[in-house]
Amino acid sequence: MNDLLQKPRKVYVSKQIEFNAAHRLFNHLRSESENYEIYGKCSNKHGHGHNYLLEVTLFGTVDRNSGFLFDLKQLKTILEEEITARFDHKHLNHDVEELRECVPTTEVLAVLIWDILEERLRNINNREISLYEVKIYETGKNAVRYLGQ
Amino acid sequence: MNDLLQKPRKVYVSKQIEFNAAHRLFNHLRSESENYEIYGKCSNKHGHGHNYLLEVTLFGTVDRNSGFLFDLKQLKTILEEEITARFDHKHLNHDVEELRECVPTTEVLAVLIWDILEERLRNINNREISLYEVKIYETGKNAVRYLGQ
Amino acid sequence: MNDLLQKPRKVYVSKQIEFNAAHRLFNHLRSESENYEIYGKCSNKHGHGHNYLLEVTLFGTVDRNSGFLFDLKQLKTILEEEITARFDHKHLNHDVEELRECVPTTEVLAVLIWDILEERLRNINNREISLYEVKIYETGKNAVRYLGQ
Amino acid sequence: MNDLLQKPRKVYVSKQIEFNAAHRLFNHLRSESENYEIYGKCSNKHGHGHNYLLEVTLFGTVDRNSGFLFDLKQLKTILEEEITARFDHKHLNHDVEELRECVPTTEVLAVLIWDILEERLRNINNREISLYEVKIYETGKNAVRYLGQ
Amino acid sequence: MNDLLQKPRKVYVSKQIEFNAAHRLFNHLRSESENYEIYGKCSNKHGHGHNYLLEVTLFGTVDRNSGFLFDLKQLKTILEEEITARFDHKHLNHDVEELRECVPTTEVLAVLIWDILEERLRNINNREISLYEVKIYETGKNAVRYLGQ
Amino acid sequence: MNDLLQKPRKVYVSKQIEFNAAHRLFNHLRSESENYEIYGKCSNKHGHGHNYLLEVTLFGTVDRNSGFLFDLKQLKTILEEEITARFDHKHLNHDVEELRECVPTTEVLAVLIWDILEERLRNINNREISLYEVKIYETGKNAVRYLGQ
Repeated sequence: MNDLLQKPRKVYVSKQIEFNAAHRLFNHLRSESENYEIYGKCSNKHGHGHNYLLEVTLFGTVDRNSGFLFDLKQLKTILEEEITARFDHKHLNHDVEELRECVPTTEVLAVLIWDILEERLRNINNREISLYEVKIYETGKNAVRYLGQ
Repeated sequence: MNDLLQKPRKVYVSKQIEFNAAHRLFNHLRSESENYEIYGKCSNKHGHGHNYLLEVTLFGTVDRNSGFLFDLKQLKTILEEEITARFDHKHLNHDVEELRECVPTTEVLAVLIWDILEERLRNINNREISLYEVKIYETGKNAVRYLGQ
Repeated sequence: MNDLLQKPRKVYVSKQIEFNAAHRLFNHLRSESENYEIYGKCSNKHGHGHNYLLEVTLFGTVDRNSGFLFDLKQLKTILEEEITARFDHKHLNHDVEELRECVPTTEVLAVLIWDILEERLRNINNREISLYEVKIYETGKNAVRYLGQ
Repeated sequence: MNDLLQKPRKVYVSKQIEFNAAHRLFNHLRSESENYEIYGKCSNKHGHGHNYLLEVTLFGTVDRNSGFLFDLKQLKTILEEEITARFDHKHLNHDVEELRECVPTTEVLAVLIWDILEERLRNINNREISLYEVKIYETGKNAVRYLGQ
Repeated sequence: MNDLLQKPRKVYVSKQIEFNAAHRLFNHLRSESENYEIYGKCSNKHGHGHNYLLEVTLFGTVDRNSGFLFDLKQLKTILEEEITARFDHKHLNHDVEELRECVPTTEVLAVLIWDILEERLRNINNREISLYEVKIYETGKNAVRYLGQ
Repeated sequence: MNDLLQKPRKVYVSKQIEFNAAHRLFNHLRSESENYEIYGKCSNKHGHGHNYLLEVTLFGTVDRNSGFLFDLKQLKTILEEEITARFDHKHLNHDVEELRECVPTTEVLAVLIWDILEERLRNINNREISLYEVKIYETGKNAVRYLGQ
C-alpha cells in the first residue's frame, strides 16, 4: 500500500482552531498615559477582545503505513487540552498564568503557544515530526507567525 | 441620465464594519452558579471577547439623480460615530452606558444597535429610506438579525 | 435587567455547522444514460462529495430573563444528534434511511433537514420560537434555502 | 422516487459568479466638481475597478422528477451568456450599451442585471419558477440586493 | 517596457481551483476494525466527501516581455486536463488509477498532484520556472502542503 | 515584563489592506492583435478592474519593551501614504507614474510595491526589522508573492 510513499515525502500539515478571548495591552511598570501613547485604544481600561484564529503547522515525513503525517484526531485532543482549555473564553491578562508578567500582544501569544506546543509534541514524538509554525490571526486583517527562531 | 431608474426601484444596501470588544454574560441579580448554569463559560469572571462583524442594511427607492440609495460615505461617518466610537476596543459590560442594566448577549446588542441607528437615521432622512436590518456575527458560525419587529 | 427587552423583540438567530458527505445524483428508476443527461458528472457511478455548510435559523421573541432567543448550547446538542450523527462522514445515498427513495440533491437535503429539525424543535418548544430557515451551501458558489413553504 | 417532494416544496436556489470590471461614477450632465462632491474618489477621471460578486436567487417549487428547482448547468450557461459576456473584463461606462445613459453605481447595476435575467428567464420558464433576487457585492464590505420591487 | 524588470525578479504565483470528490480512508491489507481504529469515521464503509481546494504555486523569474511569470490561461488548461478531469466529481478510491494502491489521505493526494504537475510542467518549461508548492485544503480548517522534498 | 522575550524571538507580522483599481494589460510597443494574443480579454481596450488585496509581511525580533515587532498604527499610516494614496480608486495604466512604462500585471505590481515599501521602511528602521514579503491577491483565486529576490 501507499506506493507513492516508497520514496520518503516531507509535508506540512496545518490545523486551525478558534478561541474567543479578552485582553488589554498594558505594561503595569508604566503609567496609564505612557501605555496609551504606545498601545492607543488597545490599552483601554476594561480590555477588549477578539476571535483569535490559530493555525498550527507540523512538518515531517508522511508515515507509509497510515498515509498520515500525524493523526489529526490526536492533534485535536492536544489543542483542546493545551489551547482551548487555557485561552478560550478567558481574559488573557487575568486568567493565563504564563502571561501574568507579559503584555499579551499577538506576538507574545504566538511565542507562548509555540513554547507550549513544542514541549508537548516533543514528548510524544516518536518519529521525525516537528512543530513548524504557529500563526495567529487577531483579526481578518492582522496575523503573526512564529517558527521557533 | 439613469433611465433605468425612471421606474422607481426599491433596493437593499448593506455595509459591514467590524468592532473588537470584550463582554461577559452575567446577570448581577443572580448568583455566580446560576449564571454559570445559564451562560456556561460565557460567564467566566474576567470576560472574553470577539471580533464582532456588524452588517447594517437600508431599504428604499434609489435616487434617480445620484444612482445611490444612500451615500455610503455618509453612512460610514454615522457608523464611526454611533458604533465604532461606542463599542470598538471596549468592554461591553463596563464601557457602554446603554448596556449597564443588560446581559450583553448578541441578541441584546443587535436590538441596541437597531435602536441607536433607527433614531439617528430617522432624523436625517428626507426621502423614503429606512433602516431594514441589523445583523451581527459574533463568530463566523453564529449570527443574530433584528428587523425592528 | 434587560430593560431593552421590556418591549418584546423578535430576532433571527443563525448557527452554522459543516458536515462532510458523499452523494450521487441518480434516479434508480431511470437508465444510466437518462441519469447522465439530467445530472451530468454529478451522476458518476461511484459518487463524489462535498463539505456541506448548514445554516439553521430560528425566529422568535428574545427571552427577557436570559437575553437569549434560544440557548445555543442546546441547539448545538440538537444539531449534533440530528445532523452530524446522521450525515457527517456518510454517503447520502447509502447511509441515510430517509433518502433511500430520493435523489439527494441539495434541494431535497434542505427539505429533509427542515422536516427533521421542525419536528424536534416543536417538541421542546415552550415559548414562541420557530424554525425559520434551513440553508445549505453545497459549495462556496451554490446554496439552497428552505423556509417550510 | 423523491417521496419527500410529494408535498410541493418551495425553495430558494442561489448561484454566485464573479466578474472583474472597471467603472467611474460620473454624470456627464454635471461638472467635474459637482461629480467629485457627490462621488468623491469614485469619480476619478480614468476610473477604478472591482471584483464584482453576483449572487442570483431563483424561487419556486422543486421538480419532483429531478429533485432540482432549476438545472444549475442551464443557469450557468445563461449567466455566461448574459452576465460574463456583457460585464467581465469590461469598463462599465464604455463597454456596456445599456449603461451608456447611467451612472454605473452598484444599485443601477443590480437593477440592470435583474431586468436582463428576468426577461431571459421568463421566456424559458415552463414551470412555476421566478427570479427572486439579484445581489451584488462590490467589495467584501458593501452589497446591494434588488428583488424587482 | 517593464523597466521594473530590468533587474531579474523572482516571484511566486498561485492559482486555486476546487474539485468535489468522495473518498474513504481504508487500507485493504488491514481489517475493518484496524481501519476504524486508525481512521475513525473517515473509514466509514460507503465513503464521504469534500470540496477540495487546491492551490498550486509556481516559482521563477518574471518574463520581461510579458510581465508574467507564467501564462495563467495556460496554467488553467493544464489544471483542467490534469486535475479537474482526474479528480472532480470522482471517488478517489475507485476512479483514480494512481490511487488504487494508496489510502487517499490529503497527504497522499498532495504528493500525487505534485508528481503529476511536476512532470507536466517540466516538459513545457523553457525558462527558469518550477513548481514550488502544492497545497490542499480538505476543509476550511485542515490543509497539507507539499514542496517536493 | 515580557519574560517570554528574554530570549530573542523572531516573528513575521502581516497586515492586509484592499485597494480598488482599474488596469489594462497592454504593451504599447506591440499591436492590438499581438496584445490580444498574449493577454486575451485582459487587454480589452477600456480596461477592467479588481479589488486588490495586499498583504505586507515584516520580519524581525520582537521588541521586549512593547511586545511588538512593529507598531501597526505606524504601518497603517505608511500603507495609507504609500499604497492607498497611490493605487486606490485609480487606473494603474494612467494614474501611477511608476507604471507608465510597464504592463501592470500582478507580478509587476508586487515588485513595485516591494520597491516602494522597502525604501520607505529602510529609512525609519532603527532595529533589526525588514520587509519580508509582498503578496497580492488579484482575485480570490490568483495571487503573487515577491520576497525581494
